[in-house]
Amino acid sequence: MPYGYNGKILHVDLTHGTWHIEEPGEKFFRMYLGGSAMGTYYVLKETPAGVDPFSPENVLTIFVGVTTGAPISGTSRVCVNAKSPVTGGIGDAQAGGFWPVELKAAGFEGIVIKGRAAKPVYLWVHDGEVEIRDASHLWGKVTGEAEDIIKAELGDPKVEVLQIGPAGEKLVRFAAIMNMCNRANGRTGMGAVMGSKNLKAVVVRGTKGRPPIKDREALAQLAKWGAQRFPQSDVAPMRDYGTAATIGAQQAVGGLPTRNWETGVFDGWEAIDGTTMSKTILKENDTCFGCIVRCKRVVEIKEGPYQVDPRYGGPEYETLSTLGSYCCVSDLAAVCKANELCNKYGLDTISTGATIAWAMDCYEHGILTKADTDGIELTFGNAAAMVEMVRKIGEREGFGNLLAEGSWRAAQKIGKGAEELVVATKAHEFPAHMPRVKRSLEVIYAINPYGADHQSHEHDPAYVPGAYDDRMAELGLLEPIEDIQLVNTEKLRFTIYTQWVYNLANALSLCQFVWGPAWQLYSTGQIATLVQAVTGWNMSLWELLKAGERTVNLQRAFNAREGFTSKEDTLPPKMFKPIVGGPTAGLVIKPEEFLQARSQYYRMAGWDEEGRPTRGKLEELGLEWVANMLYGKA
Amino acid sequence: MPYGYNGKILHVDLTHGTWHIEEPGEKFFRMYLGGSAMGTYYVLKETPAGVDPFSPENVLTIFVGVTTGAPISGTSRVCVNAKSPVTGGIGDAQAGGFWPVELKAAGFEGIVIKGRAAKPVYLWVHDGEVEIRDASHLWGKVTGEAEDIIKAELGDPKVEVLQIGPAGEKLVRFAAIMNMCNRANGRTGMGAVMGSKNLKAVVVRGTKGRPPIKDREALAQLAKWGAQRFPQSDVAPMRDYGTAATIGAQQAVGGLPTRNWETGVFDGWEAIDGTTMSKTILKENDTCFGCIVRCKRVVEIKEGPYQVDPRYGGPEYETLSTLGSYCCVSDLAAVCKANELCNKYGLDTISTGATIAWAMDCYEHGILTKADTDGIELTFGNAAAMVEMVRKIGEREGFGNLLAEGSWRAAQKIGKGAEELVVATKAHEFPAHMPRVKRSLEVIYAINPYGADHQSHEHDPAYVPGAYDDRMAELGLLEPIEDIQLVNTEKLRFTIYTQWVYNLANALSLCQFVWGPAWQLYSTGQIATLVQAVTGWNMSLWELLKAGERTVNLQRAFNAREGFTSKEDTLPPKMFKPIVGGPTAGLVIKPEEFLQARSQYYRMAGWDEEGRPTRGKLEELGLEWVANMLYGKA
Repeated sequence: MPYGYNGKILHVDLTHGTWHIEEPGEKFFRMYLGGSAMGTYYVLKETPAGVDPFSPENVLTIFVGVTTGAPISGTSRVCVNAKSPVTGGIGDAQAGGFWPVELKAAGFEGIVIKGRAAKPVYLWVHDGEVEIRDASHLWGKVTGEAEDIIKAELGDPKVEVLQIGPAGEKLVRFAAIMNMCNRANGRTGMGAVMGSKNLKAVVVRGTKGRPPIKDREALAQLAKWGAQRFPQSDVAPMRDYGTAATIGAQQAVGGLPTRNWETGVFDGWEAIDGTTMSKTILKENDTCFGCIVRCKRVVEIKEGPYQVDPRYGGPEYETLSTLGSYCCVSDLAAVCKANELCNKYGLDTISTGATIAWAMDCYEHGILTKADTDGIELTFGNAAAMVEMVRKIGEREGFGNLLAEGSWRAAQKIGKGAEELVVATKAHEFPAHMPRVKRSLEVIYAINPYGADHQSHEHDPAYVPGAYDDRMAELGLLEPIEDIQLVNTEKLRFTIYTQWVYNLANALSLCQFVWGPAWQLYSTGQIATLVQAVTGWNMSLWELLKAGERTVNLQRAFNAREGFTSKEDTLPPKMFKPIVGGPTAGLVIKPEEFLQARSQYYRMAGWDEEGRPTRGKLEELGLEWVANMLYGKA
Repeated sequence: MPYGYNGKILHVDLTHGTWHIEEPGEKFFRMYLGGSAMGTYYVLKETPAGVDPFSPENVLTIFVGVTTGAPISGTSRVCVNAKSPVTGGIGDAQAGGFWPVELKAAGFEGIVIKGRAAKPVYLWVHDGEVEIRDASHLWGKVTGEAEDIIKAELGDPKVEVLQIGPAGEKLVRFAAIMNMCNRANGRTGMGAVMGSKNLKAVVVRGTKGRPPIKDREALAQLAKWGAQRFPQSDVAPMRDYGTAATIGAQQAVGGLPTRNWETGVFDGWEAIDGTTMSKTILKENDTCFGCIVRCKRVVEIKEGPYQVDPRYGGPEYETLSTLGSYCCVSDLAAVCKANELCNKYGLDTISTGATIAWAMDCYEHGILTKADTDGIELTFGNAAAMVEMVRKIGEREGFGNLLAEGSWRAAQKIGKGAEELVVATKAHEFPAHMPRVKRSLEVIYAINPYGADHQSHEHDPAYVPGAYDDRMAELGLLEPIEDIQLVNTEKLRFTIYTQWVYNLANALSLCQFVWGPAWQLYSTGQIATLVQAVTGWNMSLWELLKAGERTVNLQRAFNAREGFTSKEDTLPPKMFKPIVGGPTAGLVIKPEEFLQARSQYYRMAGWDEEGRPTRGKLEELGLEWVANMLYGKA
């Protein structure tokens, strides 16, 4: 067995109920690493062009990376890819937990799933063995119930369960995939694709150990370095408050999306901030495998109208903002209840909250009335209405059936100006970082292959005090851009280079809070140290960043094959209207500035004027096969 | 003072006899490093577009790098740049010796020279002080004599002298710049540019020590590693035989350019091989500052028609081939004499030998007769004629005055089919590695910014046994290309990526025999270790290779500004005719294959269809100012 990875990829055909194991060899693993790089490789190679995302022909991939399972912080992540029912382009979602390490122990780097089972099934992958098992009795069950049944019937409480809830079964477009009932491969509707395959769960267990580490001493040194640095690092507050304290940080600078993105400040922010959560309902903090950070929240509410089961974890910053400030809801218990429902039904909290906020906006504008909303007064700030809407979406019940299509598709059906209120790119609702405030986001939200995403590059450095130390210089970024309202060439270099770092992290399936360019616990250069220690490959930062760039280009190539052009790389109308109130009042994106920044991004990335990777760029990255697929043989 | 470098650049205006010191700051040094990167920066910025290379406005730069002078092998090199009187594009020439370290000790990283002195002068740079001194008494002197006089009049035998000989004074287009009378900044006519400025020499001396090393222990470890590895390394034979044993290696595979490139085998090869030289006339081997390799040859001949002074060193492989096999001359003493004359007159041995071989070819074809050649029977194999022609070129005497223009310009004057026999690109004569044999050279010879060059990328890997170990993988080159006759995408990736490594070496002014991607003593990754140890910067291989790519793009941008397009990126007619005889008989480049490879190279490098760096590529490399210069403000 090679160091760090199993070398084995499981291919499952649900239509025929068959599976086989592929062992592509070391060079393949070194080039594609795993995660979203290897996932996209298979989606691009095996999903025919133009198929419906819910077609059996759409290939769903679940990959960890070559460093997954190494005993050090931030290495237990899993990436899911498929053609997205939200965007129509490549889908991509990452999650943490213990499932990733358990897949490795079970003997695999990833699973490539095609076809559709005749009836509900789940996969049982254990110590190199594979079973496709009946899941009829699990269908319709929320995540906690399904997990209990699976563990009982397999007779092993240590199995790890990656599953969809009822939302995925019902093809809610933004359905998530859950593990531990509280870790979500949330975005781009990967849970709906899994549901379309009649695949309820992928259950893994390994008892024979993980692949060996090449240089255990070097890895131990790196882990020790991280442990010693952690208390002084920028990540240290994550242990105390999780991501949730970002509420207060954004509020302070006028960057907290509120009232469906009308403003960047929220009067009720303090009630939903992480510090408040810590002082009130926090039961404990939780962790992924082997991680020193322990950023996950576990909340419990035993009394009042919104009782919350700690099994379903607690809300992240994005959840607190989308289900909270987006909707002007300052009732922390309600937001936690909505979060619990999302995790039970298997819903992406970001798209769920953002879609509800959009519907509230429509309601406030008179575009929707009680006649549309099943009699619910869907006004901003109505906590009960927000919680009820989450349930309705999860059940595809009444008005929830429309919202289950996401804000963009719902708006197309409603018309009457509802489209003007949507805040999404490629139909993918915006996460809670504001492009009118941090201007590099205007480009990334527009061009990111799987739609607006907040973990695809480093946010504007003016927000990262001290980031311009040696860590940025290591990427050749020597000039700090303090002016956040500037989109100049240096800021675009910063955006593109750090995008490659984040995409490298996705290819290795590393946690972006632990490994990355600026404020993370470890620096980009230390990713090279990690890979070298685990695998024994002398991978340089050069080779690794090329892998990051390769990932972005693979994903853009998938979209290009699906006919995407610059028309898909847009910003919603609200971005071109000034922010109302707060310290960022009046900030606005000018359409001509956006178009100029996008064009410049394209050319700096080596793409054509429609945002397609050029043949030359693909060839340079070792992706000649992709170039031939897109453009024919040279 | 920063670590490793002085931070000071000397600017000299010879027209006005003035000078000043610039201190551009750390970021500038980290981005441009020194060498040909920093040199080209100033040539591009300060030489007006379209000027004659012999105009006072042409800026001549002489740079070492941030690691120059560190006590480890292969760091004492100097790069010279200016607009080339040979190519009309960027000129570039590198040399070793002790001068580079002495410049550092004298307090400078480089010298930027513009204008023209009213009468011959030399620069005396010592301990941060600068004098522009009269050189009238040195004008016309060969290098050895001039050096003796300078040392005597400055009263210090330890001064280091970088100078031109009579060839540079007389504007022989391919005149070299010499130091130690036997190290040549040989190519692209930099000596002629120096001559056009009435600048005889740049003399340096420092007594106050070089800039401190940041991490002496890490540097010592790296040096120790090199010393221990050296005996087993691919470079070890260089101590015994220098580059001269390449004669036998090329002969064995049919890659030794012979009879003006008609064939790749030479009957008389053994007489001029490095092993023969070692057994006969070798007096000793010589070294540059602090280098373990000691590759330099010193030959001495005290008897016979060709007596050779050891002061002028001994011939390199390229010299043995161009003055030997190109001309079918198998008289080692004659070749050594010709080498001595080149070093006395300050002539590029490659262009000198190649131009004489071309003239012999014309003579054999009846295009030239004794009426043209001052009565000399200029046949292949005529050693005496070859030696005499070198002298005539150095003196610009008779037929030598025509040859002093180089083969391409001479052929334009002669006509009658003489152009068909020229083996040059951008008027720059080919060095002694055959593109019909090692096919990556067909692209590099055509596109290299300063004309055909053999030290601008790693030659085809099939010639480098074991090169595809981890060293290549570190560059993301995982697939060995064993078929040398193949120019596929993988070979072009290999070509481009290793070109960036070589250009990085030029930017740091490192010896390419010691630092580089494949068979060198140290690997590319260890260049990062070197830079980190010397400067304290945490420069990654990523940042360093970007600096290499930046250098190529700066140089191509200079050419683009001078109006160069793909028309200048050609191969001479002989490349499209089959090799005659030997193991490579029949090998030939097909025009359509060449054009296809060139186009693919362009697009993979991020250049347009005319080979110009695109605005986006320049912006990505932090060269927005160059993009604006070429294309106007965005």
